[in-house]
Amino acid sequence: MENKGILIVVSGFSGSGKGTIMKRLLEKYDNYALSISATTRSPRPGEEDGREYFFRTVEEFEKMIAKDELIEYAKYVDNYYGTPRAYVEEQLQSGKDVILEIEIQGALKVKEKFPETLLLFVTPPSAKELKNRLVGRGTESMDVIEFRMNRAKEEAEGMDCYDYLIVNDELEVCVEEVHRIIQGEHRRSFRNAAFIEYMKEELKGE
Amino acid sequence: MENKGILIVVSGFSGSGKGTIMKRLLEKYDNYALSISATTRSPRPGEEDGREYFFRTVEEFEKMIAKDELIEYAKYVDNYYGTPRAYVEEQLQSGKDVILEIEIQGALKVKEKFPETLLLFVTPPSAKELKNRLVGRGTESMDVIEFRMNRAKEEAEGMDCYDYLIVNDELEVCVEEVHRIIQGEHRRSFRNAAFIEYMKEELKGE
Repeated sequence: MENKGILIVVSGFSGSGKGTIMKRLLEKYDNYALSISATTRSPRPGEEDGREYFFRTVEEFEKMIAKDELIEYAKYVDNYYGTPRAYVEEQLQSGKDVILEIEIQGALKVKEKFPETLLLFVTPPSAKELKNRLVGRGTESMDVIEFRMNRAKEEAEGMDCYDYLIVNDELEVCVEEVHRIIQGEHRRSFRNAAFIEYMKEELKGE
Repeated sequence: MENKGILIVVSGFSGSGKGTIMKRLLEKYDNYALSISATTRSPRPGEEDGREYFFRTVEEFEKMIAKDELIEYAKYVDNYYGTPRAYVEEQLQSGKDVILEIEIQGALKVKEKFPETLLLFVTPPSAKELKNRLVGRGTESMDVIEFRMNRAKEEAEGMDCYDYLIVNDELEVCVEEVHRIIQGEHRRSFRNAAFIEYMKEELKGE
């Protein structure tokens, strides 16, 4: 079977715990790599170039855009954020499954460029639980709650576009489920076209 | 999430061990049901109506065809074989994943009628191993080998139509893989449309 890694995009409701799931997945299994984003924002204390982000100037970033060196990018407020293609492709070629944590607009762009991308959407187990998390513990201002609600509405509109819904109820159970889903995906026929061709050729030879 | 079972069609190269895998899967986990075929052939000694097959007369079988009570059927030599719809739907409704062991023509017919059907194709780990199994231990007649080879060629042509390739190298490992793939499939977005709608509705209410 093929040894190339799978490109995985993870999105999900705010507060769904997607970051924690991915962190745990990388701790437990060494066949995953987390994509590192490039950004034009300034490093915060303790952040290192090439670890949290690739820190770039606006000129450098725009050169990357022009040379099609980013899988996707977006501008938030005044800063660019994007996914450098080279690192991702390197990791995929070496057999690692590469995880990108991005939002729906970026996810759909990646899927368009790389149709074999696996899209995962992380959600709490129920709408009630989602609402609880959005409303918080009664300490949030109405503004914050409204902002979260609107964002969640937008996010929910995109759920159908994702391949799998990852239900985050218990962290360890969820991490195992994500791992199994990704490993299962390696067995998809369309990801093993070379193996199928090889079988056909071998049988034709007789 | 939804509790309805998944309809699963299993095909594979002769000698791929698909029957053994499914038997083991049913022994290990109680969330699976094996579909029982109807046939017009006579019961062999030890076979029981409703266990190995539903034994029917030609008249009865043709009445089932006319009333669209079969998901798929085919005629081999002089006997009809088919999959009764009622049993399958009952099991799916009760939450069981229902397994159908049929060949490619039947598999594609089922997929057409029920687009959410999961198609699994069982294969040895390599073309070399497949050839070894087809050629046998040198005790087979040329006729038998040729028959197997031709059939394998036909079977290989359909591999692309299946959702997953199940590589049967070690039985227990393979059974676990099949189980994980099927359980993972329960998390596919398109199998959880009601959950997604529910989320959207809940968020709209705010």
